[in-house]
Amino acid sequence: MDRASSSTVARLSSYFRLLGELQGEGVETVSSKRLAERGAITSAQVRKDLSRFGNFGRRGLGYNVHRLRDEIGQILGLNRVWRVALVGAGNLGQALFSYEGFAKQGFPIEAVFDTDARKIGTSWKGLEVQSFANFAKVARKKPFNIVILAVPTEAAQKVANSVIAEGTSGILNFAATRLDVPPHVAVREVDLSIAMESLSFALSQ
Amino acid sequence: MDRASSSTVARLSSYFRLLGELQGEGVETVSSKRLAERGAITSAQVRKDLSRFGNFGRRGLGYNVHRLRDEIGQILGLNRVWRVALVGAGNLGQALFSYEGFAKQGFPIEAVFDTDARKIGTSWKGLEVQSFANFAKVARKKPFNIVILAVPTEAAQKVANSVIAEGTSGILNFAATRLDVPPHVAVREVDLSIAMESLSFALSQ
Repeated sequence: MDRASSSTVARLSSYFRLLGELQGEGVETVSSKRLAERGAITSAQVRKDLSRFGNFGRRGLGYNVHRLRDEIGQILGLNRVWRVALVGAGNLGQALFSYEGFAKQGFPIEAVFDTDARKIGTSWKGLEVQSFANFAKVARKKPFNIVILAVPTEAAQKVANSVIAEGTSGILNFAATRLDVPPHVAVREVDLSIAMESLSFALSQ
Repeated sequence: MDRASSSTVARLSSYFRLLGELQGEGVETVSSKRLAERGAITSAQVRKDLSRFGNFGRRGLGYNVHRLRDEIGQILGLNRVWRVALVGAGNLGQALFSYEGFAKQGFPIEAVFDTDARKIGTSWKGLEVQSFANFAKVARKKPFNIVILAVPTEAAQKVANSVIAEGTSGILNFAATRLDVPPHVAVREVDLSIAMESLSFALSQ
């Protein structure tokens, strides 16, 4: 996926969220103009984004909220539940585990792994933190589609290799390192440095 | 800042990091091609990004690594130390506080605030977690340029209002809510949902 389409996907995510809110308010149709307002983009951009994936609206009538939300959900792969594991039960791992957004979106964390004997066996909302040594055994029964990596930088590549070997093809990486992965694996980095630099850039203008 | 320039800034950040590595390796000049490889973009894009801010390279000779890194650092506002406070001393706050990248980049967290009596007074690497009730008093001596918000969703807007009233003009927001702020304030959201949806999109193709 190139950079252009990664921003398209981010916009689809934001349309999806707004459509959910509109649905909650009982709104039935929505214009590209309304969809554009939230993201501070143009309505032409909204129409261009959506037309890449199909012909969802009708000129002058706008989009049907319910149908468009379903379509975007399908495009984003949200019409199914992904099997997600968290590796790393430190502070960041705990924060991510408590993050309600994941489960709401259809990404409930089904298993937590760590290598630290003090963490293994502790219970998180009824889920027992397992030894990472068990990962292969658990994944062989049913692979994890997505692994959230919340491990120290120096461990990240090795853990990534192991989970990829056990069938994981999506990694959400919180370690401050760029992972080297085979072409079939998708990695998204949550890079706090870039967010911070974008802030200091804005404050410097 | 529009979406286009926010991706420019993200690219500048990644050039900046690569230039730092090259400097460490003793490399003196670098081509736009080399700068492009890391981000899987074209060298034309690199030249376009850099030419927006000045005339840094010489045709056929490439860029001087040291000078270009300095220039980009200045553009990104990294040639100064920003005064940063963290509000929210939960798991996420602790994870962010332990994140070494911030201090390395020139964003050391100078104060931590919370409203929870069990957290107030505890010491984090020698820094005492303070009551958020003290924020105004501390900020009035010397305002915090940037506040990292790691508070529950329902508290985020209220905390944002308070810190903005005390002179903060940059917010790194981890709460899953869109903040309503005056035009002079820059907000960057770290939206884990979008990262996850981008992964499930990639896995669905």
